Amino acid sequence: MFMKKTSRRSFLAQTGVTAAGIAIAPTFLSNKAIPKTKYTGKKLNVTLVGLGRYAAILADGLQESQYCKLAGVVTGHPEKGEAWKKQYNIPDKNIYNYENFDSIVNNKDIDVIYIVLPNAMHKEYTIRAAKAGKHVICEKPMAISSQECNDMIEACKQAGVQLAIGYRLHYEPYNLEMKRLGQDKVFGEVHYVEAGLGYQTINFEGANAGKDFNINDPLEWRLNRRWSGGGALMNLGVYCVQASRYILGENPTSVSAQYGTVHDAKRFAQVEETILWQANFPGGAVANCNTSYGYNIDRLYASAANGFFELAPAISYGPFKGASSNGDMHFPNINQQAAQLDGICKLILENKALPDHISGKEGLIDLYIMEAIYKAANTASKVDVVYSM
Amino acid sequence: MFMKKTSRRSFLAQTGVTAAGIAIAPTFLSNKAIPKTKYTGKKLNVTLVGLGRYAAILADGLQESQYCKLAGVVTGHPEKGEAWKKQYNIPDKNIYNYENFDSIVNNKDIDVIYIVLPNAMHKEYTIRAAKAGKHVICEKPMAISSQECNDMIEACKQAGVQLAIGYRLHYEPYNLEMKRLGQDKVFGEVHYVEAGLGYQTINFEGANAGKDFNINDPLEWRLNRRWSGGGALMNLGVYCVQASRYILGENPTSVSAQYGTVHDAKRFAQVEETILWQANFPGGAVANCNTSYGYNIDRLYASAANGFFELAPAISYGPFKGASSNGDMHFPNINQQAAQLDGICKLILENKALPDHISGKEGLIDLYIMEAIYKAANTASKVDVVYSM
Repeated sequence: MFMKKTSRRSFLAQTGVTAAGIAIAPTFLSNKAIPKTKYTGKKLNVTLVGLGRYAAILADGLQESQYCKLAGVVTGHPEKGEAWKKQYNIPDKNIYNYENFDSIVNNKDIDVIYIVLPNAMHKEYTIRAAKAGKHVICEKPMAISSQECNDMIEACKQAGVQLAIGYRLHYEPYNLEMKRLGQDKVFGEVHYVEAGLGYQTINFEGANAGKDFNINDPLEWRLNRRWSGGGALMNLGVYCVQASRYILGENPTSVSAQYGTVHDAKRFAQVEETILWQANFPGGAVANCNTSYGYNIDRLYASAANGFFELAPAISYGPFKGASSNGDMHFPNINQQAAQLDGICKLILENKALPDHISGKEGLIDLYIMEAIYKAANTASKVDVVYSM
Repeated sequence: MFMKKTSRRSFLAQTGVTAAGIAIAPTFLSNKAIPKTKYTGKKLNVTLVGLGRYAAILADGLQESQYCKLAGVVTGHPEKGEAWKKQYNIPDKNIYNYENFDSIVNNKDIDVIYIVLPNAMHKEYTIRAAKAGKHVICEKPMAISSQECNDMIEACKQAGVQLAIGYRLHYEPYNLEMKRLGQDKVFGEVHYVEAGLGYQTINFEGANAGKDFNINDPLEWRLNRRWSGGGALMNLGVYCVQASRYILGENPTSVSAQYGTVHDAKRFAQVEETILWQANFPGGAVANCNTSYGYNIDRLYASAANGFFELAPAISYGPFKGASSNGDMHFPNINQQAAQLDGICKLILENKALPDHISGKEGLIDLYIMEAIYKAANTASKVDVVYSM
């Protein structure tokens, strides 16, 4: 799965569309409802690498953020660069392509590089950004293997730059409440966690389901193992791995896993459509998780000694709904991207180390767990999760 | 696990309490809210075997039922017989003990025997009731092995009596709606079902948790393999097996399963505290289920091509709450026992065969599945469910 010197240009030659395909339908709610002190100091300048659908969502977040702003883009398509330049008032000198990207080392305007490329390109562009002396935010999953994650962490350490993974839910009030209720044992010890995230990408009803599907279409990169590193688990299930970890405040010691039925052998020739897994945590809790490209699901549930707490919708872009044994939860539905970018950039501005739970270390742990889940599913056995850190 | 000539008296010698221990906290809501034609014909006379906690709940149901009434009891405790006699106006001649039970063959007053004994006694008392020429209703799980179920079915067939299993949820409006939404494909094909039922029986907080626990205490029969045949799966999980089957209208072809962490080795020395299982259905759906004596959970969820539907609480005695992609469900919360008894006894009165889904055949299928689940958990492998019918 290890890849070197990926040509972004060749990858996008066909359609020029990036990071799209299967994506979560976004719902935007303004941060404006949340009163906060207005920050008026220096803002970090962020460059987005890869101008697909999620980059546009991040660009919206950057309009609302206080501690950073959109200052540059990296794209293989000059016409896209032109469009973004006009829409976001980006100076010409801050628009790069994949060939001249490394010269960003000389651009003192740019503080942070946010990588929004297909999974298999995260490592290369993280390392190139680090070598250019820029702080890095890399979308989840961090990479397509734990080895790649280790290489990325090492490169950022060597370069003296910070590395964050795009774990937006660590800044989202409903998920923060789930974390608090679990880790603070508000309802006592948590014994069972259920986490599911799935998006139906198959037209089950249509007679021509999968008819024109082409695994080499960049729009379908999530289904092409070379670009994605895996199926639903890598792109959606990683949120469930995360949720079980932040609710319990622990990392699993072992996992079992099962692939679900494949409903579209053409679409899912290279990566899994559905996978279920069960994770055992050191404190005795079990997490029962599932993720799918074949059905919709978006739920978190925790059963503790003295009560339950849950979200549904839980993981998507919201708006979320939550409840516990004590009744309904009431939190603002925020712009998650703005909150995440502000949370990260404020610390970078203050020259403080980013917390572990949004760091490269966190991304690496997720990859160790996902590698164990795949191994468990492939061998139909219980697999210990080995953390080599 | 096969047992012969169980002495009910010796089993109950210590405390005289039956079918109690771990039980679902009941909530009673009257049937009176549901308008229906009043039946004024002959009522079937029902004898309850085993006067534990659930027998009392059934007795309440029998006060509300139209097609049957409480006419007799079988108990090893004369003082209990006296108390029930007074409370329910039962004639002396309809009060039996476990020794003279077979003489009920000569009691033309009694039409139906309802067996509410520990699991391991279901077979013996079903066969004795059948030999006495009485129709039988047997609580779930039908028995502690598929072999026992086959013997029970054969005995009832030989005796020319009908055999029903106490599947109350087949008469409960919210669960009937889940069945309809699934089997009628109201939201299209169902691809994923989640079912969980658990009741926390451990005092995790208490310093003396499990201190005075005695596996031979009849109150704890559910934890004694000799009486229960298994742990949470046999007593609670069977509802999840059922739910996955009635939502999908199919029987699983294979299962995987995992035991959860044991938090109280003394209580759970003989049977499982927690078990998770994943069932694969012929149409391609996956059911992801869990059951526990270590944590509370009571949920059903189904994801279909065009929507979801769910209940929580779902399986206990209610009141239930349900919702789907179309909004909240609104059904009466009924007396489940009265509805179940009426549903069964009306058909017996009309001399009609009971439908498969509440028959001994249904109970047998559940045992085939549960045996496969235990095998899968014990061997940590995917196990085909073999239906030898």
